[in-house]
Amino acid sequence: MAEVDELQEWSSELFQRTQRQICEALEARDGGARFSSDHWERPSEVAGQSGGGGESRVLRNGALFEQAGVNFSAVKGILPSQVASAILQTESETEFFATGVSLVLHPRSPMVPTVHANFRFIRAGTHAWFGGGADLTPYYLFEEDCRHFHRVWKTACDAHDPEFYPRFKRWCDEYFYLPHRGETRGVGGIFFDHLGKDDSPVQYQRFMETVSGAFLESYLPIVDRRRDEPWGEQEREFQLLRRGRYAEFNLLYDRGTQFGLRTGGRTESIMMSLPPVARWEYGHQAPAGSREAELLSLLRGTPRDWAA
Amino acid sequence: MAEVDELQEWSSELFQRTQRQICEALEARDGGARFSSDHWERPSEVAGQSGGGGESRVLRNGALFEQAGVNFSAVKGILPSQVASAILQTESETEFFATGVSLVLHPRSPMVPTVHANFRFIRAGTHAWFGGGADLTPYYLFEEDCRHFHRVWKTACDAHDPEFYPRFKRWCDEYFYLPHRGETRGVGGIFFDHLGKDDSPVQYQRFMETVSGAFLESYLPIVDRRRDEPWGEQEREFQLLRRGRYAEFNLLYDRGTQFGLRTGGRTESIMMSLPPVARWEYGHQAPAGSREAELLSLLRGTPRDWAA
Repeated sequence: MAEVDELQEWSSELFQRTQRQICEALEARDGGARFSSDHWERPSEVAGQSGGGGESRVLRNGALFEQAGVNFSAVKGILPSQVASAILQTESETEFFATGVSLVLHPRSPMVPTVHANFRFIRAGTHAWFGGGADLTPYYLFEEDCRHFHRVWKTACDAHDPEFYPRFKRWCDEYFYLPHRGETRGVGGIFFDHLGKDDSPVQYQRFMETVSGAFLESYLPIVDRRRDEPWGEQEREFQLLRRGRYAEFNLLYDRGTQFGLRTGGRTESIMMSLPPVARWEYGHQAPAGSREAELLSLLRGTPRDWAA
Repeated sequence: MAEVDELQEWSSELFQRTQRQICEALEARDGGARFSSDHWERPSEVAGQSGGGGESRVLRNGALFEQAGVNFSAVKGILPSQVASAILQTESETEFFATGVSLVLHPRSPMVPTVHANFRFIRAGTHAWFGGGADLTPYYLFEEDCRHFHRVWKTACDAHDPEFYPRFKRWCDEYFYLPHRGETRGVGGIFFDHLGKDDSPVQYQRFMETVSGAFLESYLPIVDRRRDEPWGEQEREFQLLRRGRYAEFNLLYDRGTQFGLRTGGRTESIMMSLPPVARWEYGHQAPAGSREAELLSLLRGTPRDWAA
């Protein structure tokens, strides 16, 4: 138990440091707007105990980012029985602790992809584990960017176990999938969960340090390459329609969103992943041979092996 | 069985006629754009049988309506076991038939409320029943409009059973509720389900005729009163933020959306309820004393008795 207490503390510090480093780098890159910060506390369900809290940071209407949200939280409470049964195979209410850093960046330019990353440590009942990942959602396809993103994550994974990247890459493709559209959300990345749940999460500490430290390297070079690409009305329109799909995924399928809302999480922080503006258009189809059709055909096909 | 076959046929004709009448009236009111129509067929899961189909009608970029979607469908198939267990208390796969008319109107002016209505007949295994309702989502509060809407539905209900309106009004307030926001979606209306499921839906035929015929009277006078109200940037902005909440409800909680997506429904028709444009803004708050704050306080308070 003492070891898990330490791990909990260690994780919370790692994720808070990750939030700070990422925000500093993004602010420097944006150059136009600053992050504002909200400290919040979670009402406790257990008398006399703190429910923990977090810090939500958001940058809006920047030169580069239309909206960038980077959240840190460390909360504890009681898992409702239906949530406990879904993740722990127990029907009884269970105490939990969860800490993580979670970000979604929505650039203004449709040429710069949206990116999401999350790293977390969860403890529930007698189990504790790590989870996380990062995935890229381009609006226009630049194969070089997809390769760069995947290679950074492959390198990070390979440093710990050569089986990680292939497994976590496939997991990501399967997770970020919209069955009602027959589309992946984007071009994937890595996704992993329950690391150490059945034995011990301690063995994954170094891995978590590596991946939480790899985010900036996976994304910033893409930003630098694409931020000055020209775009107009048509590209903006397509970006807004694809952001509609992003909202569909997050609200219909994302387990983090569902977990957060069902365990009394802070709504404004959870919903920060949603795009600042999104569109839906009945029966939209991209003209054959267009760049928009190229992206759709990629998302509807067999996921590619970008790190090869 | 012959009686249920007839009821199925009768319902399908009623809902198709309702679609036609509503579209004609909306087109005349809009004056700017026309409905376009898509006939579609549902792939059958049962060899040699038709899976049915439907007609989706949409009017876009009208003078009055930014988007108006009015769908009719009559489909059959196999209920996946988890859907069957949720609505029928059986774990086994079950054949179903569903027919209905469903509409969501998104006016351009924030002064004209969004409205949703749906009337349906469902048959699954040995059960058959009617469901439906209509609810109003204003962006700016005109109490006169809320009273008009509710009174039309109360009159329609009262003609059949004085207990209907109070029951269906409360059901509506409970159903169109976003627990994570602590808000109702709008000012309600009526909602009912499972009518006749445990005995016979035949006794509700006249009621279904009345309510499906009452929609235009419930909504058009509101449109006429509000379409020339002035509005600007600020009102548009608030409308888009509230439309974000509308998308949250439909994707997170709406049972029709979930049922449709899980039973292999036609995605484009199901997603037609989503707004053409929506916004999300972290931590948005309406200034105290503003008309926006007035609406929010209404949605966060105890639902009012508008028909009193």
